[in-house]
This record gives sequence, C-alpha cells and structure tokens, in this order.
Amino acid sequence: MIPEIPVNPERFLADLHQLRTFGASGIGRGVVRPAFSDADIAARQWLAGRMEEAGLRPHYDPMGSLFGLAEGRSLLLGSHTDSQPEGGWLDGALGVIAALEVARATREAGGPAVSVVSFQDEEGRFGVTTGSTVWSGAMGLDDADALTDPAGIPLVEARMKMAHLLHDFVDPAQFSGFIEMHIEQGPWLDEAGEAAGVVTGIVGIRDMRITMTGQQNHAGTTPMHLRRDAFQALAAFNAVIEERFRNIVTPETVWTIGHVSLHPNAHSIVPGRASFSMQWRDRDADRLCRMEGIIRSTAQEVAEARGMDLEFGQMLGLEPVEMDKDLRAALEASAEVTVPGKWRAMQSGALHDASNVAAHMPVAMLFVPSINGLSHVFEEDTDERDLVTGLRILAGAVARLT
Amino acid sequence: MIPEIPVNPERFLADLHQLRTFGASGIGRGVVRPAFSDADIAARQWLAGRMEEAGLRPHYDPMGSLFGLAEGRSLLLGSHTDSQPEGGWLDGALGVIAALEVARATREAGGPAVSVVSFQDEEGRFGVTTGSTVWSGAMGLDDADALTDPAGIPLVEARMKMAHLLHDFVDPAQFSGFIEMHIEQGPWLDEAGEAAGVVTGIVGIRDMRITMTGQQNHAGTTPMHLRRDAFQALAAFNAVIEERFRNIVTPETVWTIGHVSLHPNAHSIVPGRASFSMQWRDRDADRLCRMEGIIRSTAQEVAEARGMDLEFGQMLGLEPVEMDKDLRAALEASAEVTVPGKWRAMQSGALHDASNVAAHMPVAMLFVPSINGLSHVFEEDTDERDLVTGLRILAGAVARLT
Repeated sequence: MIPEIPVNPERFLADLHQLRTFGASGIGRGVVRPAFSDADIAARQWLAGRMEEAGLRPHYDPMGSLFGLAEGRSLLLGSHTDSQPEGGWLDGALGVIAALEVARATREAGGPAVSVVSFQDEEGRFGVTTGSTVWSGAMGLDDADALTDPAGIPLVEARMKMAHLLHDFVDPAQFSGFIEMHIEQGPWLDEAGEAAGVVTGIVGIRDMRITMTGQQNHAGTTPMHLRRDAFQALAAFNAVIEERFRNIVTPETVWTIGHVSLHPNAHSIVPGRASFSMQWRDRDADRLCRMEGIIRSTAQEVAEARGMDLEFGQMLGLEPVEMDKDLRAALEASAEVTVPGKWRAMQSGALHDASNVAAHMPVAMLFVPSINGLSHVFEEDTDERDLVTGLRILAGAVARLT
Repeated sequence: MIPEIPVNPERFLADLHQLRTFGASGIGRGVVRPAFSDADIAARQWLAGRMEEAGLRPHYDPMGSLFGLAEGRSLLLGSHTDSQPEGGWLDGALGVIAALEVARATREAGGPAVSVVSFQDEEGRFGVTTGSTVWSGAMGLDDADALTDPAGIPLVEARMKMAHLLHDFVDPAQFSGFIEMHIEQGPWLDEAGEAAGVVTGIVGIRDMRITMTGQQNHAGTTPMHLRRDAFQALAAFNAVIEERFRNIVTPETVWTIGHVSLHPNAHSIVPGRASFSMQWRDRDADRLCRMEGIIRSTAQEVAEARGMDLEFGQMLGLEPVEMDKDLRAALEASAEVTVPGKWRAMQSGALHDASNVAAHMPVAMLFVPSINGLSHVFEEDTDERDLVTGLRILAGAVARLT
C-alpha cells in the first residue's frame, strides 16, 4: 500500500494565481517576468516566504536560483519562475508551485523529505537555462557573468540587483533525484485529449548563426544575372535543406530559421548580407550530427554557386538527456493509477532545467497539456483540472519513491 | 555646321572636386551629404555663388531646390547635389556641375541660354525624388511637409533650416526642355568599355509591403507539420515568384526583396509574422501590371496553402517615362561625333528627377560609366576622362538644339 501525500488543490491553485500577479501583463493570464526584473525578484521573495511558512529553509545561490531546503537528504522538485519577455502564467511557475505544495503536504503528513527549487533565467535572457547551467558546472560563474542580454546588459550587473539575497551554491549531493513538472508546450496531449505525459527523454539541440555575404547594390540598375543577393542565397539554402532533411528526420525532429537579419535591409537595395539562425532538435545525438553535416555542406554549396562569402558562428549545443528509469517508473505508475489510459510516454522537444540537473543526479519530468499547444505567448493556458491531475500524479510518484 | 560650346574640362573637374569637400566622408571619394544636412546646405550656398559668378540668377524654391536662372526662355540642365546617407562624389553632383560648366561656357561664347538646377532630396531622405516631385505638382507642399525621415523628423522642420534662403516656385514654362547627365549606377557601360549611354526611357517602379501572419510558437515543441511558419511562407512565395516571372520578364526587368522583418525574430521561436518589401521595375507599364497580378495571386495561394493571414500594403509606383525624341536625337548625334561607336542607347533602371520634370517639359538623360557598376556606396567612381567625354557630349547636344 502506497502512503498518500495529502496535497491541497485549492491552496496549490491559490498560490499559482498569486504568483501570476507578479508581472501580470498582456492578455489573458499573461506575465512579463524575465530573469532579474523587478517582478522576478519580487516573485522570488514572495516564494521564499511561502517556503519558510512550509518549513523549508530559503536559500538563494549566486545565480539567484532559489532553493527551499528540507533538512537532510531529500528529493528535489521544481522548475523556474522567470518568464519569457512575453510569457504565460504556467511555464516554469507550475512546476515550482506544484513542488511547493507537495513539499508542504508531505511535511504536514510526516512523509518523505522534499526540497523545492526555482532556477534563475531558464528562459534565457542571458543564454539558455542559465541558472541551472551554472549550478550543473557546465559553465563557470565568471563566464556567466560576462554573458549579455539583448540590450547589452551583462549578467553580473543584473544579478547584483539581488546581491543582498545571494549566498553560496547548494551542494547537490544532498538530493536523491529531481522531478520537474511542466506544461507540455506542444500540441500532442491536447490533441489526443490526454491528461499527462511522462517524459522519456529531452531532445538535444544545436543552434548556429550562419552569415552569407554577397554584394550590396542598387535594386534598379543591377541586372538579375549579375546580382549576389544575400536574401536569395538564404532562400536557396532553406529550400535545399528542406529537401535533404526529408531523408533522415523523424516526425519529431524539428528545425527552425527563426531569426533573419538582412543588411542594409532597404527596399531599393539588393541585400549584401544575410545573417540568420539555424536551430535543430532531436532525441538522437547521431541524427543531430548528420543534420549538422547537411547544413554545413548545403551552405557551402549555395555560397559557392552564388559567389557568397560564408561564415558559421559558434555552434551552441545541448546533448539529448534520457530520463532516469526509476523516477520515470514512479511517475508512470502514479499516472496509470490517477488517469488510467489517459496519459502517454513522450519526448520533450523543449529544453528544461532537468537537462542540466542530470549532471548531478537522476532526473525525470511530467507534462500536463497545453491548450492548442501554445507557449511563449500570453495566451498559453491549461485547464485547471489538468493542473490538479498533474499535482496528484507528482505527489503519487514522490510517495512511491520513499 | 554646329556652333561649338567651348567647355573648360579643368574648371569643370575643379568644381566637381570642390563640391565633394562638402560632406567628404568614408573611404575614397565618398560623401555624406543628405538633403538638408549642414553639408548639403553649405554645398548649395557655394553652388549659388558659382552660379552668380557664371551670370546666372540663383533662386531657391520652397523645397530648397536651387536654380541658376538664365534670362528669358532657356534649356534647363541639372540633377541634384544631395547624397545617399553613404554616397559617392558623382551621383547627382556630376549632372549639376556639368550643367554649370555648359551654362557658363555657352554664356561666355554668346551661345544659347542655359539654366541650371540642383533638385533637393533626390535621394529620398523624406521619400523618393522629393524636391522634383513637389515641383512637378505630383505632391503638394503641405503633404510633403508631413513626410518624415527614418529618425522621425518631419520635412517641414528640415527645410526650415534653410528658411532664410527660400523663395517661390520657379515657373517651368520658361524652360524649353531638361537634360540630366548622370552616372549609370549599373554595370553595362563599364563592362562593354563604352563611354556613354543615351537614355531611351526611365523604368517604372512598383513597391509594396507584404505581410504574412501565421502562428508564433515554440521552436522545440511544435512539430513541423503543425507549424504556420511565416519565414517558410515568405521563402515559398519567393520561390514561386522566381518561377512565374521567368515567362514574362526581359533581361532588363528587375525585382527585389530587400527588406525582411520577422516577428519575434528569435532563434527558439517559430516566426509568427513576416513583413517584407517587394519592389519591381520595368520600362513597360503593362509588364509592371502583369507582375503585380502574379505577386498578388502567388501571395494569396501561398497564404491559403499555409494557413496564413495576408496583408498587402499600399502600392507605391512611378510610371515609366519615355525620353523626348528630339532631345534624345541631339544627345545621340553628339555622342556619335564625340565617341563614334563607343556609346549605346539604353534604359535607366534607376529613378531620376527627370521622371518628375517630364510632367512639365521634354526631358532626356545622358549616362557615363560607373566603375564596376557600383553606386550608393562610398566606392562609387568614374574615370575622369569619361566625365569629360560626358561633358563634351552634353555641350554638343545643347549646341545642336539651338
């Protein structure tokens, strides 16, 4: 017989709604709470108070990640409370408040020790999952401090806004594992009418800036056959990539040209330079490499054929991460009891702090549906019944792990 | 026997070099002398002095276009002395100083009356060929005053910087015709090793902003088959346009996507909106219309197929302008005498003040080569022997017209 952790759905939802008042913006339940903003710091201070009330010891690390520590060895639950520049109320926040409720309920019931974390800058004002990246040891604090946001502000200056709160890094050895509950941010669960997803693995990601330089010239007097038009080179690259990827991708592989910058970007001038982002994601590290090969060779072929100079930026990457089988089994067992037949095992196409935490301990993740698959927009939302279902699955998994 | 107008090449080149000292910048013989800048106004005041010394009456119209008026009925020669934000020493300046030299030489020799003009803002700080557009009557001064530059400064504020110089509009009825000498700004003459081009017509231009709106979403969690990616819609539009234009264009037709703006323009977000410029030019108004039809129907097809909202901006256009056959014949006869077999009849792919002046009187244009076809860059240049050849052809044409 599994001991139950008596979570309180009303208290959980009330805290979740309280959290969205910090940075409430835009339409619907939108929030604007980027890392180190006044709203973000105020939200963390409110959260630290709630942790304290729950009998946890609040502790900010040097990056501003906020831990609520149980005494002794504990399971760590959490996610992040910073948001996209235009974000929803649940992205990150859900996992933190669910963690708080499970930690609070288990403590009240004398259950297993649970600690809580809200990592800082998961949304990447200064990079990608910056707070957990530094905690994982993948990047030193000095290197992180030199990162800048799109406005050119260095991270060190941003985190000094909360200097009075910061202490040392938390020793990860005190945690037996990490479970992150999160909205799916994709359409699969919502489309299928399912209540939850137990994550099998988090995809790997590659991200590279590509710059093609041709010849800027007059758009009236330069004949088509003499042009070295950088936008046309980008368009040709894109078309060939779409063709060549077909043979090696799966239905879950994704790739995106999300950022394009032309120079001089004027109606009457043939673009001399196109700088653009190429990002691709897959669960298979080999496939990520094969895609990189196609991207590099295609860009070279297109550049040569069109007389363009070609420059590849630094390639940023995170490797695919498999979820721990014991933690995952606990989530699956709990899901099957809570919503029999209405959940699935699935990959995560989004990055999460769990990818970094995996360097220190076993990790697992639980997804709840995103309405219409929307995320990173104000309209992001999830039915509150699904939020509570996720909370119960998480609590059930924690109970099974003791 | 044609009476000769005894132009002075040294005096002409000296004035041309003097003019480039106003706003001299960048590399080589580059200038930064945008309309109504301090350098532009100082250059106009210097030019007014040279006009007076040549026996012409300087007169600024309300737009800041500077005329050097001969007495009675005269032929008008000229171009513009404002430059691109990063321009060369000859674009516009050549036609004005050549006009000054011909007017000066013909007056000294008791030849036909020649007036000179430097139009204001040909390079379009506030629009396109703004000074001559207002003089032509195509736009009222009130409407022009409301135009703003990229920094948001209204034209009325800019022209008030030279308010103490401005007088009434000049009556175009006093001019028998207009000839504009200009650098080619394209590669044809330089590639062929020819010294001059007599313009047959100035192309028409159409310019339209097109916006496609799909669904902004997460670049990791949104499967490829569910995306409504605005950049991919733009790329598809571009590919189909390239295919469909093939059947109707000539080797001189040009079209350009020079400006692209994605939203939110981030590596990790599927672009929800692409706004881009489509500009096309041709000598044949019918062809411009057929191209417009293809652009509109292709954009609609692509938008429908990809679930995008589609919006066409206002279409800006200038009609193709044919050069006057008598003025053109005089230029051709003069060119054949000056450089037998080393000139060509050709269209102008660039817009010029002559397009606007054609509303009032017969117009014609003479081109000299642009080294490597470069223009609207600091590196723009022409061999000084070709400048002098152009001056002689212009003077010879004027002599033939009396």
